Amino acid sequence: MAKSTGRHFLQVPGPSPVPERVLRAMAMPVIDHRGPEFARLGEEVLRGCQSVFRTAQPVIIYPASGTGAWEAAIVNTLSPGDRVLMVETGHFATLWRQMAVKWGIDVDFIAGDWRHAADPAAIEDKLRRDAGHAIRAVMVVHNETSTGAISPIAEIRAALDRAGHPALLMVDTISSLGSADYRHDEWRVDVAVSCSQKGLMLPPGLSFVAVSQRALTASRSGRLPRSYWGWDDMLKANAGGYFPYTPSTNLLFGLREALAMLDEEGLETVFARHARLATATRAAVRAWGLEILCQEADHRSPVLTAVVMPDGHDADRFRKIVLDLFDMSLGTGLGKLAGKVFRIGHLGAINELTLMGTLAGVEMGLAAAGVPHRSGGIVAAMEALCPETSSRLHASAA
Amino acid sequence: MAKSTGRHFLQVPGPSPVPERVLRAMAMPVIDHRGPEFARLGEEVLRGCQSVFRTAQPVIIYPASGTGAWEAAIVNTLSPGDRVLMVETGHFATLWRQMAVKWGIDVDFIAGDWRHAADPAAIEDKLRRDAGHAIRAVMVVHNETSTGAISPIAEIRAALDRAGHPALLMVDTISSLGSADYRHDEWRVDVAVSCSQKGLMLPPGLSFVAVSQRALTASRSGRLPRSYWGWDDMLKANAGGYFPYTPSTNLLFGLREALAMLDEEGLETVFARHARLATATRAAVRAWGLEILCQEADHRSPVLTAVVMPDGHDADRFRKIVLDLFDMSLGTGLGKLAGKVFRIGHLGAINELTLMGTLAGVEMGLAAAGVPHRSGGIVAAMEALCPETSSRLHASAA
Amino acid sequence: MAKSTGRHFLQVPGPSPVPERVLRAMAMPVIDHRGPEFARLGEEVLRGCQSVFRTAQPVIIYPASGTGAWEAAIVNTLSPGDRVLMVETGHFATLWRQMAVKWGIDVDFIAGDWRHAADPAAIEDKLRRDAGHAIRAVMVVHNETSTGAISPIAEIRAALDRAGHPALLMVDTISSLGSADYRHDEWRVDVAVSCSQKGLMLPPGLSFVAVSQRALTASRSGRLPRSYWGWDDMLKANAGGYFPYTPSTNLLFGLREALAMLDEEGLETVFARHARLATATRAAVRAWGLEILCQEADHRSPVLTAVVMPDGHDADRFRKIVLDLFDMSLGTGLGKLAGKVFRIGHLGAINELTLMGTLAGVEMGLAAAGVPHRSGGIVAAMEALCPETSSRLHASAA
Amino acid sequence: MAKSTGRHFLQVPGPSPVPERVLRAMAMPVIDHRGPEFARLGEEVLRGCQSVFRTAQPVIIYPASGTGAWEAAIVNTLSPGDRVLMVETGHFATLWRQMAVKWGIDVDFIAGDWRHAADPAAIEDKLRRDAGHAIRAVMVVHNETSTGAISPIAEIRAALDRAGHPALLMVDTISSLGSADYRHDEWRVDVAVSCSQKGLMLPPGLSFVAVSQRALTASRSGRLPRSYWGWDDMLKANAGGYFPYTPSTNLLFGLREALAMLDEEGLETVFARHARLATATRAAVRAWGLEILCQEADHRSPVLTAVVMPDGHDADRFRKIVLDLFDMSLGTGLGKLAGKVFRIGHLGAINELTLMGTLAGVEMGLAAAGVPHRSGGIVAAMEALCPETSSRLHASAA
Repeated sequence: MAKSTGRHFLQVPGPSPVPERVLRAMAMPVIDHRGPEFARLGEEVLRGCQSVFRTAQPVIIYPASGTGAWEAAIVNTLSPGDRVLMVETGHFATLWRQMAVKWGIDVDFIAGDWRHAADPAAIEDKLRRDAGHAIRAVMVVHNETSTGAISPIAEIRAALDRAGHPALLMVDTISSLGSADYRHDEWRVDVAVSCSQKGLMLPPGLSFVAVSQRALTASRSGRLPRSYWGWDDMLKANAGGYFPYTPSTNLLFGLREALAMLDEEGLETVFARHARLATATRAAVRAWGLEILCQEADHRSPVLTAVVMPDGHDADRFRKIVLDLFDMSLGTGLGKLAGKVFRIGHLGAINELTLMGTLAGVEMGLAAAGVPHRSGGIVAAMEALCPETSSRLHASAA
Repeated sequence: MAKSTGRHFLQVPGPSPVPERVLRAMAMPVIDHRGPEFARLGEEVLRGCQSVFRTAQPVIIYPASGTGAWEAAIVNTLSPGDRVLMVETGHFATLWRQMAVKWGIDVDFIAGDWRHAADPAAIEDKLRRDAGHAIRAVMVVHNETSTGAISPIAEIRAALDRAGHPALLMVDTISSLGSADYRHDEWRVDVAVSCSQKGLMLPPGLSFVAVSQRALTASRSGRLPRSYWGWDDMLKANAGGYFPYTPSTNLLFGLREALAMLDEEGLETVFARHARLATATRAAVRAWGLEILCQEADHRSPVLTAVVMPDGHDADRFRKIVLDLFDMSLGTGLGKLAGKVFRIGHLGAINELTLMGTLAGVEMGLAAAGVPHRSGGIVAAMEALCPETSSRLHASAA
Repeated sequence: MAKSTGRHFLQVPGPSPVPERVLRAMAMPVIDHRGPEFARLGEEVLRGCQSVFRTAQPVIIYPASGTGAWEAAIVNTLSPGDRVLMVETGHFATLWRQMAVKWGIDVDFIAGDWRHAADPAAIEDKLRRDAGHAIRAVMVVHNETSTGAISPIAEIRAALDRAGHPALLMVDTISSLGSADYRHDEWRVDVAVSCSQKGLMLPPGLSFVAVSQRALTASRSGRLPRSYWGWDDMLKANAGGYFPYTPSTNLLFGLREALAMLDEEGLETVFARHARLATATRAAVRAWGLEILCQEADHRSPVLTAVVMPDGHDADRFRKIVLDLFDMSLGTGLGKLAGKVFRIGHLGAINELTLMGTLAGVEMGLAAAGVPHRSGGIVAAMEALCPETSSRLHASAA
Repeated sequence: MAKSTGRHFLQVPGPSPVPERVLRAMAMPVIDHRGPEFARLGEEVLRGCQSVFRTAQPVIIYPASGTGAWEAAIVNTLSPGDRVLMVETGHFATLWRQMAVKWGIDVDFIAGDWRHAADPAAIEDKLRRDAGHAIRAVMVVHNETSTGAISPIAEIRAALDRAGHPALLMVDTISSLGSADYRHDEWRVDVAVSCSQKGLMLPPGLSFVAVSQRALTASRSGRLPRSYWGWDDMLKANAGGYFPYTPSTNLLFGLREALAMLDEEGLETVFARHARLATATRAAVRAWGLEILCQEADHRSPVLTAVVMPDGHDADRFRKIVLDLFDMSLGTGLGKLAGKVFRIGHLGAINELTLMGTLAGVEMGLAAAGVPHRSGGIVAAMEALCPETSSRLHASAA
């Protein structure tokens, strides 16, 4: 089948579409990473990252994927045989656990059905029972990209506090940062892990950790071997706007531009936009008569919506039809969800009309693939947007 | 009101959205327009343009807007006081006539109501009455961008033939070339005028004329003064791939890429795509209960659809609301249609999902602006696409 | 021979190398040329052009080559049979004259040997003899791109004044604008013609005319036919930031950026840089023992240097060797200078080290082509830069 | 001091200037890294990397700096307490050793004065004395970027063979790959480490390891913890053109383009070009009367030339003057060479004229900084290029 002309709809839950403005910034000539112009770039992006994490503490930028930042969180803070508490929110929580195990960490993994967020009460319960404070860290995925459930980090922080437990709180903000409300300092998170290709609207290739003073202190006694991911050399070089080894300069050019865009729109506006588009998406799914994977209304993600396929229908066959007919990429089901769900990304540089095109593509794809559903999802989505639209109109007229 | 994030929807009937692939091609470093590398570029784009016009005769490329190509058609072929026959299909036909008048041409302008295509019978009638063959040229707009009516050039050619009239046939293909079927040689058109920013998917800045041998012959006796637009110097320089004055090199880089894209998709496929999206758009307009400006079903344009606003509602107020709320540009009503119609462009590098986003934006905009309409236009549009979609799916599976 | 890797050296006297910053600006998505965002762009570039021309009077921007601006100057101000005075400074003056003749203008062409600038005394003499003021305009090329001679416009203005002659003063600033000092209002020029691909550092495709109130007045009585080039419609539309027909939007994006760059560097600094590099180039030519085409030291151009080939050596063979061996484009000899000179462009976005690479390429090319010369041109060029360099160093240290 | 206009001369020994063609390729919209289009990209770049390493064995691509590839080499093949043999060629060898020590490796470091390449005889001697084969790996830097000495890997391979020692041979090809002859399979190297921003002409952000079957076997028994750098998951995913975690898609777009460029030019031609430019650079340094850091003529690098500053003159002050006056970045002295040398990079997308500009900048900078030297370096460089130029000219004419 001939490839469709016009814009590809990249509606996976990351990488999100990179604004042309960011692509152009990345296309600038590379510069000397030891020169004065670089130092200004370094300082600017490091400071900008603090704003997005809402922290006054250090943010570290790695030339690496988000997976590398997971590793950085582990190897800097823990020691062989350390015990940590993790929560099985979905595929990515499972992968992070596997990584911890590879590093010799003893993981207590609170089981989950991949349809719920992390439960603060369950965490609190585990911590209360750990009278000897053997648990060194609680490690949670904020927005589980494989399921579309977002976990309540503020409440998890409160759970630690109530339990009076000194464990570090480490949070994967891979797909939440820049799309959903995240408050590093206010929530007293110790290590937050993130990456470039989601809410930050960049191509993949950069990852981030925001670290607290407690985490830095822990890093001094952590006994896992480390070099590339080591925080000390990083922070030393960062003080002058430089990096201890060659940084990914052109992605940093893009980062500077993306941070400027987030700043221009305002983080609160960005979050409200994501919430609005998520609401519309869920209205469409309900109108189609399909099931949203995440079973808790309060924890449905502003970033993506995972949709359960009716029995007997393969999600990947459906996705292929949508790709072939409408040149749109939807997210696949990961791990044990393979073939059972598809995921609609509604994050990053996306607006109402792009979402409407996306939902139309899903609706036409369901029809083309012979998946039982009711039509009219997009009408429901438009209605869901309507009150919001009206209020923006009135605000504009005022 | 804060600017929406994500892609702007540029749904005016030209300029059409420029594919990123073309923008990147245009961003190549400029080259010496007298060197050997340029000659290869020149030859390639001149040959490619012949394919799009479906002609084996010369195509001339000007560093100019389409308006310049209108002027080139006039000044090369006519002499002061010459009589020509034009048809009032809408705003652009009217502007072309004004230009001809400025050049001292005596224009017989067949009146029209801006809701119909040019009528071959009326043309034939005029020509038959011109026993002395005073009429030097019949000048028609193929696709009237201001109204969304497309005129039947093959039938107009037949009208000239039936009348046995030797007038030159000059056609404005500004918004049809590369979007609607146009056959320069088969229809024996003498001068076709076009531009870069519509079906050719380029930014504005280039214009084209395809000329027949008869037109070239006429140019030798035409007595209007000319220099910049002169065909002789152009054709002489073009023979080696060069231009008589500095060409718009970077737009030519883009043209080479755009021609390659049209070639890859195939002109027939391109036309079918435009027709399909136009059908869906008209289904939406009907579902909204609004009126399509062009009153003849057979002559509704595959390129754009002009929609009549209900009485008492200003089209430009509606367009402003759509721009403010949904970051989408729709076409304004031109000339005497100002405020009375808006135009939806569905041309160039556009696909189904972008159109669905567009129609959703119109539907939400109608609601936001308080314009009386029925909802569900986008559902009608999806249904209109459905049979086509099914057949593509089966073709793909076969 | 395999193409060299790395940067092509585009050292023709236009198009000059386009800064990547400008190319990136041009790669922005095209916008609706009737929308509010465009109006801001239009106003900004129109205002910026006034700064570069140093005028408070209107500047008009055409989607066209510089040749089109020549035509605009003629058709707006003159009438059939009008007499004008032109000066044969070289190839481009000759072409402009040919164009005027095509438009039915009676040109009094002061003969020249293509090795000198226009002579104010000769102009004054002609004007004094024109007691009846039949001469409607004096038309001069400021920087003759074919020869590398720059004419003294201020003195020519004074010549008109001394002669008390009311002729319009029309100046071709094609290759001087943005590279050499030009003062539209101070010198009371009536029409200045320019283009995008020289000092403005853009690709070709835009042309400009700066017009005085006298020229506007003249345009109202001028009786040459005109439409595309007509000033009235232009100025009317420009008042709102718009254009009467589709403008070359993406080149205007580039223009905005290029104007910002000129403003950041400062016009005086830009002119000083051009002068400095021209001095170094001429020092190299003298060291090689070759002859500079322009015979008047005071009128050698800051923009380009035309070098006379020794007898028996073909300039174009030499240029081809330089292109093949060193991937550098030098300017060819134009018109009667074909094969006899080559031209080194040192204009636009160029700096000391690029010029040194250029001169090294010429010196190695002379050796490779077996052209008799002395080596060491580049050493002479470095020495010529040296005092300037020292003073910049001291300024920096201060 | 105002920033110079025109191209920055980025003449550090990496990052090398990124060709605009590569920058444009990187500016393409990001794609779904789990979709079919990505698989084609993945397969293409993995295959292309094998060509550049001259290997039929796997090449692994990390979203990371070259430093990450160093770590990958260590953690995949070694176990805590393992003994390895390294050679102190300069700063980067020293850093690699520090990293190995952090990972608990016992490094036997053959001392060096940073002015010589690695000595195969010394390595052979060490290995012969290691009768028990305690040494698990010989780890050598091919081209020492801090000194400009290139070590003879083929001879080191022969030394291992003569010693009959089973140690793995691990080579840092960070700044040699794509610039100097390197033959992974022929020389039976077990792990070669490289990165994107040198001979591959990309921005930083990708790193590479080419691994032998022996290295893969070793990785199965290596007992250092690893996850991000683990080869097993990589190779499994790579088999289908995918990656086990999100790859740096846009840098891979650039890589595809850069590999195509190397293939078009031909690796042998690329190496010859580097050798030619290095010869010219060294001729200039000798003409200036300055000392080349690397004391062995046979081991002077084709990639960069480190120049010793005369006593009492600070290299970084000189570099700052060159940056301020001529907008050129030269490499700083690293580690114990700080202030004592500057480094001229002549690698990647560079040609004769850019090098001449570079050398002119050094020569003018030496004068401006008051560093004692003889003038005429650039003349010597041109003379050094001359025979080569002549032969290319004759080849071209034939």
